Amino acid sequence: MKTIGIADTTFARFDMGFAAINELERTGTGFRIERYTVPGVKDLPVACKKLIEERGCDIVMALGMPGPKDKDKMCAHEASTGLIRAQLMTNKHIIEVFVHSDEAEDDSELAFLADSRTREHAVNAYDLLFRPDNLRRNAGTGQRQGFADEGPIKRR
Amino acid sequence: MKTIGIADTTFARFDMGFAAINELERTGTGFRIERYTVPGVKDLPVACKKLIEERGCDIVMALGMPGPKDKDKMCAHEASTGLIRAQLMTNKHIIEVFVHSDEAEDDSELAFLADSRTREHAVNAYDLLFRPDNLRRNAGTGQRQGFADEGPIKRR
Amino acid sequence: MKTIGIADTTFARFDMGFAAINELERTGTGFRIERYTVPGVKDLPVACKKLIEERGCDIVMALGMPGPKDKDKMCAHEASTGLIRAQLMTNKHIIEVFVHSDEAEDDSELAFLADSRTREHAVNAYDLLFRPDNLRRNAGTGQRQGFADEGPIKRR
Amino acid sequence: MKTIGIADTTFARFDMGFAAINELERTGTGFRIERYTVPGVKDLPVACKKLIEERGCDIVMALGMPGPKDKDKMCAHEASTGLIRAQLMTNKHIIEVFVHSDEAEDDSELAFLADSRTREHAVNAYDLLFRPDNLRRNAGTGQRQGFADEGPIKRR
Amino acid sequence: MKTIGIADTTFARFDMGFAAINELERTGTGFRIERYTVPGVKDLPVACKKLIEERGCDIVMALGMPGPKDKDKMCAHEASTGLIRAQLMTNKHIIEVFVHSDEAEDDSELAFLADSRTREHAVNAYDLLFRPDNLRRNAGTGQRQGFADEGPIKRR
Repeated sequence: MKTIGIADTTFARFDMGFAAINELERTGTGFRIERYTVPGVKDLPVACKKLIEERGCDIVMALGMPGPKDKDKMCAHEASTGLIRAQLMTNKHIIEVFVHSDEAEDDSELAFLADSRTREHAVNAYDLLFRPDNLRRNAGTGQRQGFADEGPIKRR
Repeated sequence: MKTIGIADTTFARFDMGFAAINELERTGTGFRIERYTVPGVKDLPVACKKLIEERGCDIVMALGMPGPKDKDKMCAHEASTGLIRAQLMTNKHIIEVFVHSDEAEDDSELAFLADSRTREHAVNAYDLLFRPDNLRRNAGTGQRQGFADEGPIKRR
Repeated sequence: MKTIGIADTTFARFDMGFAAINELERTGTGFRIERYTVPGVKDLPVACKKLIEERGCDIVMALGMPGPKDKDKMCAHEASTGLIRAQLMTNKHIIEVFVHSDEAEDDSELAFLADSRTREHAVNAYDLLFRPDNLRRNAGTGQRQGFADEGPIKRR
Repeated sequence: MKTIGIADTTFARFDMGFAAINELERTGTGFRIERYTVPGVKDLPVACKKLIEERGCDIVMALGMPGPKDKDKMCAHEASTGLIRAQLMTNKHIIEVFVHSDEAEDDSELAFLADSRTREHAVNAYDLLFRPDNLRRNAGTGQRQGFADEGPIKRR
Repeated sequence: MKTIGIADTTFARFDMGFAAINELERTGTGFRIERYTVPGVKDLPVACKKLIEERGCDIVMALGMPGPKDKDKMCAHEASTGLIRAQLMTNKHIIEVFVHSDEAEDDSELAFLADSRTREHAVNAYDLLFRPDNLRRNAGTGQRQGFADEGPIKRR
């Protein structure tokens, strides 16, 4: 039995944690979920590290929706840097799923994007843990999460 | 009995430390306070780490008011990066409460924002320590600290 | 027998992993390959560290194609910072091969660039491991990977 | 007997180290000084760490005058990040005193600023070591070093 | 007998490694040289750390010539951050000598700058190791490497 951590925020405007858990349960079995909700994205790095070191998670999804201002983009950058550091300190993957409000035209599209990107990354997390050959088969094929895939390119 | 650290600065123009302690005491019991005042936000990371490792704090609030210039924004970025690093080194939460002077129209609004954001984050700190289910219930609901909440969004 | 790690992504639009392995095998012998595919460039740092610490790699190539937006450039910066950190934690080289989509005029040139830069860096990785004198002989000679070399300059 | 480290640079155009030592000696007793001069601000982080770990300093002042170009500002950012990291690795304060050449109108004002900011921070360093209540009393009062204090603000 | 490490790149267009070694040998005795050539500046941090930890260097010079594009400046920033981190992990100085192509008008001036800056920093490295009083005497005097010194300034 593996443990998958789900770290999310009260700042986000969409329940990405629900989307992640729902998709993971549709994707396969053999794991249990540990969920940890924090105020904002800058609280995610230590939450993810605690999920790994104190609650035994084998992999974690870090879910957040940074705001639109320059200050918010800097917060997202600081959070991302911390998430990578947390991974290097634990040798475990933390799949970052950040949805930026300026990626969508309106709230409805933003909610769609938050939902679909979270779900596609939930499958990535499952694959990293249980079936890495799925990722191997798609190496260099231009996969995208939330938007349409870009696909592979070739030399002339 | 838990210990909550309050790290603040002489640079800030509002007594955010008082606001934090006052709000924590209105919110609940079961903790004692350790306060540590430093000159500016770049001194906060090590102050918070010392609060955790030398004064036994279970969680810390890092309170600051970065100035308006580009140089000040860079200081805030460096401080934030250090606060995340300090959390990863200790596996304890440090709730950053930074109020930027260009977030308000005048000094009075800035003081209001410093006061209210500190108080709302004091409740977040209390929740992380004593009642994480409060945060869990608000996951993905667009909570904000100091300004009005943005609320949740839905897919069409 | 040495072990060379190849970390690549499903986000990339060209199979840089194949190019790296193919070129390494044309360059010499005395090594085996460990390949690890992750979703995107921000997943590369921990993948490389795991290749070194869990699968015994002596050197790793980190292959990725960051997207064209500002957000993508920030992801690449965060990934690069993590790759350097991973090297300092393990005392092993991780050769970063990133191809940015705005480095080429069209998809075909981009594929050419991804292929040729990966292959030239595969030789660099081989040299670091097996024949460092090759690098020493080219010190300060303006070598480039993927584009034409710039060559050395002289004082008048 | 405490030890206060003074790390400064040959790049700076004002003898900030002298100003720091002179002001510390005017402020109180109970300490000895260890001085360490390096070429530029990027050499300060390890110099400060060596002052703490190899020469027994209880606190360090890191004194520098970054140049005016974008490249210089990036150097200052890298140095600041390293100074915070050094503090987190040692659990000791390093008081950064950086004076940027574009903060003053001419060389004379720049020298004045370097002198006065260093001296005010020397008192901060002394207070952190010997009388933290002085800082505690000034929490949230808008203290500045080198320029006039901004003072506290109030909610209407 | 001390050991001085020289880490340089094949990317650089001038043989900065030769300039460093030549100047060190003109400056004094009592040391031996360890040279390590890597492809680019982002490979320098781990090379320097390996020089210190695996080849016993007491100090290292990290020599590089970042390119002119924004992407190149970001590489230089990532490398510098890593060089500072490597110093903090080893408590040894790494003297960074980076020459940016946009610092000079043409190739000839660039070569002159690479040569002279490397040589002046070679003396700094020697002084840090063998005669720190030379640096101490020049504290706050506006020393520059490669261009003319700026000299000290005074309060009116």
